[in-house]
Amino acid sequence: MDSLEERVGALEKKLTRLEDTIAIYQLIASYGPAVDRGDADATAALWLADSTYDWGGTLVCGGEGVAAMVESERHRGIIGTGAAHVASLPHITFDGESATAIGYSRLYRRDGDHFQLFRLSANRWELVKTREGWRVRSRANRLLDGAPEARALLEPAPAAR
Amino acid sequence: MDSLEERVGALEKKLTRLEDTIAIYQLIASYGPAVDRGDADATAALWLADSTYDWGGTLVCGGEGVAAMVESERHRGIIGTGAAHVASLPHITFDGESATAIGYSRLYRRDGDHFQLFRLSANRWELVKTREGWRVRSRANRLLDGAPEARALLEPAPAAR
Amino acid sequence: MDSLEERVGALEKKLTRLEDTIAIYQLIASYGPAVDRGDADATAALWLADSTYDWGGTLVCGGEGVAAMVESERHRGIIGTGAAHVASLPHITFDGESATAIGYSRLYRRDGDHFQLFRLSANRWELVKTREGWRVRSRANRLLDGAPEARALLEPAPAAR
Repeated sequence: MDSLEERVGALEKKLTRLEDTIAIYQLIASYGPAVDRGDADATAALWLADSTYDWGGTLVCGGEGVAAMVESERHRGIIGTGAAHVASLPHITFDGESATAIGYSRLYRRDGDHFQLFRLSANRWELVKTREGWRVRSRANRLLDGAPEARALLEPAPAAR
Repeated sequence: MDSLEERVGALEKKLTRLEDTIAIYQLIASYGPAVDRGDADATAALWLADSTYDWGGTLVCGGEGVAAMVESERHRGIIGTGAAHVASLPHITFDGESATAIGYSRLYRRDGDHFQLFRLSANRWELVKTREGWRVRSRANRLLDGAPEARALLEPAPAAR
Repeated sequence: MDSLEERVGALEKKLTRLEDTIAIYQLIASYGPAVDRGDADATAALWLADSTYDWGGTLVCGGEGVAAMVESERHRGIIGTGAAHVASLPHITFDGESATAIGYSRLYRRDGDHFQLFRLSANRWELVKTREGWRVRSRANRLLDGAPEARALLEPAPAAR
């Protein structure tokens, strides 16, 4: 039988892992609302200074690049006519203070009187735990159009297997 | 080094916050299945007696109003031809025993031999913790059709910033 | 006032339930990426040897059957042209070491230059906790096309009411 101190130590370790998982769920769940309300600061704050967002077009670099993307004419146009960036519940694998989350993103756009699923992508988020919480080191998306590149993003990190 | 008693107290506090988060995920995840199987009682039980559901049409008041909505001819017609009310993973901010959850809802309807995304809305849930668990004080939805009103629903509560 | 030992015991019990909930979220979130990257082994490993997947066509039996489904020409064709199997956040009810999760699945397929919502189904997962983690005892899907059978899958297990 473990001592009370050992049991408390085990609880602390398990609870931290649950907190990490929920924190990553919340980070990913906050992305869509942030970009869809046009909040460049909140979106940028999710990324590390030295990070990337490879959405399939020109590579976006760091929180500054992410902020510029949200403030761009193109993005303002998308949300001005109606848009939603919806993430799926991610599958997460941990490696110490790093994590890999895989899942799907859907960009819906209003088109006349209906909604169109404009982009449907495989997503791979590489995340790190900082003193201020979990942040994005890199995110990559690829359209699920049959390209092997999209399927490769859905591979879990080795630690998970 | 904290005493064992202090560590247990810290664990209890953190665990309660995780339980709250999961309880809200579960509440929001239970809404769609409840309305889509036509279960007025289960749907109504999510709302406080003194509460609102502002879905964009006539304001629905309290659990009784929610029950009447689920039992309406209109709703029965929708589920009779095939429908799904699917919520996204919400982003939650807490303020003591209250919480604000933001995210997206999609109403799909069967249309002949295919499915149509009939409504796509920004969602804002205001929730309170009662002795019986978390309940809805208010929920508001707005179509993401470019109206600033929809984007405003996606603003997190001030505590989160 | 409870003793420290009683408080630690209560924490262990509550934490285990949270871990169970997150483990089931993760299991369900891992299904889509596994089938969409064509990983028969990872998909099969989610099911018990003595289990079923009733997707609405020929009944799939056990992990072996699930692996054969993923390796089939039909499935390879689907992912070869572009597909995503996206699950919603499930609503879970526990009964000891068993659980029932209800929610929605969507199969999107690439069709020319756009994405089509090919199947939208009610889902019911019956899960059991094994020494190796949570596994699927049975999963049933039905298209939400107005059939009462689909609505019946969305009924929570009795323990939850």
